[in-house]
Amino acid sequence: MQSAEARILDRQNPIDWLHGLVASDMAAADRLIHDRLGSAVPLIPDLARHLVDSGGKRLRPLLTLAAARLNGYRGTAHARLAAAVEFIHTATLLHDDVVDVSALRRGKIAANVVWGNKSSVLVGDYLFSRAFQLMVEAGDVDVLNVLANASAVIAEGEVLQLRSANNLATTRGDYLRIIAAKTAALFAAAAESGAMIASGSDAFTAAMRSFGHHLGIAFQLIDDALDYSGRQAQLGKSIGDDFREAKVTLPVIVAFERAGDAAKEFWRRTIEDWAQHEGDLKRAIAFVDETGAVGETQALARSHADQAIAALTDLPAHDIREALIAVAEFCVERAY
Amino acid sequence: MQSAEARILDRQNPIDWLHGLVASDMAAADRLIHDRLGSAVPLIPDLARHLVDSGGKRLRPLLTLAAARLNGYRGTAHARLAAAVEFIHTATLLHDDVVDVSALRRGKIAANVVWGNKSSVLVGDYLFSRAFQLMVEAGDVDVLNVLANASAVIAEGEVLQLRSANNLATTRGDYLRIIAAKTAALFAAAAESGAMIASGSDAFTAAMRSFGHHLGIAFQLIDDALDYSGRQAQLGKSIGDDFREAKVTLPVIVAFERAGDAAKEFWRRTIEDWAQHEGDLKRAIAFVDETGAVGETQALARSHADQAIAALTDLPAHDIREALIAVAEFCVERAY
Repeated sequence: MQSAEARILDRQNPIDWLHGLVASDMAAADRLIHDRLGSAVPLIPDLARHLVDSGGKRLRPLLTLAAARLNGYRGTAHARLAAAVEFIHTATLLHDDVVDVSALRRGKIAANVVWGNKSSVLVGDYLFSRAFQLMVEAGDVDVLNVLANASAVIAEGEVLQLRSANNLATTRGDYLRIIAAKTAALFAAAAESGAMIASGSDAFTAAMRSFGHHLGIAFQLIDDALDYSGRQAQLGKSIGDDFREAKVTLPVIVAFERAGDAAKEFWRRTIEDWAQHEGDLKRAIAFVDETGAVGETQALARSHADQAIAALTDLPAHDIREALIAVAEFCVERAY
Repeated sequence: MQSAEARILDRQNPIDWLHGLVASDMAAADRLIHDRLGSAVPLIPDLARHLVDSGGKRLRPLLTLAAARLNGYRGTAHARLAAAVEFIHTATLLHDDVVDVSALRRGKIAANVVWGNKSSVLVGDYLFSRAFQLMVEAGDVDVLNVLANASAVIAEGEVLQLRSANNLATTRGDYLRIIAAKTAALFAAAAESGAMIASGSDAFTAAMRSFGHHLGIAFQLIDDALDYSGRQAQLGKSIGDDFREAKVTLPVIVAFERAGDAAKEFWRRTIEDWAQHEGDLKRAIAFVDETGAVGETQALARSHADQAIAALTDLPAHDIREALIAVAEFCVERAY
């Protein structure tokens, strides 16, 4: 058990607290992640390690491990599932890096960032195959089914997102469908598969799935809000990626809906015609801010975090349950 | 049973003969292929169907179905595996279409062919996930293992191939390792998984795997030889893709090895420096031809076809066994 001080300290970042509660499981998952990145083909570990070691919080595999432990799991298969979940996530990031030449031609993206299109695709495929191997090793066909379904849903979500780029007719419903698929599906499957491998009851498994789903939605909403945050920019964090890629996220949908004629013209030029000039990001941030679009996005995230926490209501008291609740709170609060 | 006439007619194309012998199984696999291409996201079936219906011979799923039937299989899971194998193949083709901007910048590839980089990646991912779902439905963890391993090997092979492009130091050993991984691994796994789902003996399963492996090697060698075939060009078939992409295949390795100074200079400019001009493909074909490089490639393919056929030696007489032998012969003969 941790000392009271350590717990108070850790609660400043609840993700670290949760890491501490499943530390030995995460160490096992990390060993698998590093072992399975190995390949006789040098480019593969080089490129993959760059991403896998890039300081991500391993939030998704954490959900798998936490769900399994919360149900008293004492086996080792959960670490394989956690490693597989991280590999699926990393493969998705690599494939997200692939850029269309049409984007390049519009002069928005430096050529060097897209020189490695093909490497990103192939190393992503390798990681996806490695994930598949790890899941097969875990040996539970029902879990395989959950993760296979999540993979198909993620790919559909990415295609939906691609089609919504440059398109100001994208609705709130379209947007929510996209983030449910491209982000929340893996959060939900990660938590659900941890519950399943631990032979959780149907009610426990459904609760963990619901927690993962709503946490994923809240997480993506906040991510999309932060991309238009002037405060983030002041903190030296990179913002404006979605704007530059002309993605139509909730802040843009709301800001466009409430825009006057001049602002509507601005959004049509920068998003639909994809003609962006110096200073446009600053104007976009101002429009998003003054229409209350960031506030609305944060409020929706808050409501999903509440639903995530509500999913855990009937679970017995447990450090991991407390930490999961704190993680859901933290995911929303990081926006302020 | 077929009439003697029909068999003689079919033997003109042994792949059609083999199709006829597993016609109802292939119809079931085709139904699955079309059903699983469905998606609420319109781009997915549009793009995927374009490839899946493009008149390919479905050689890989045919191996799965043939191996299962040859061992007297009477279930339905083999059709799921066959559809999965075709989806993996199609996903690989889609990801092969992704082009690096570095390639585009050298002016060798028309911009329009690469506008859809991102769509190719994401629809490929969708098909890969669908393959995964189908394999899970087939429900045999050992088979899942074989196909998961094949997927990882294919991805490694594609990365190896990427690294050998523009590199005249690529050896015969490097080349054989690449084609064993990127092509023969799926042929081998397709045949092996059909044998396994039919509860084949270890000897039968090993024989089918060996047949698939050697057939895959022979198939790729002939493909690479045909890409430098003047006769193919006369028949109106597209050639020169490998040359334009500066892939270092066996015909190039042999031709470079036997080249005089002027020819060495030619290969360095066109492959290593990737500076290709009008008329270079014609010169490349002439160099490949006069050094006997095509002949050597064909001879190696012949030897692998013989090894594929030898793998079937101990199997009892069966129409499917005969048809598989004829397919191996045909794969080599199509080159002449």
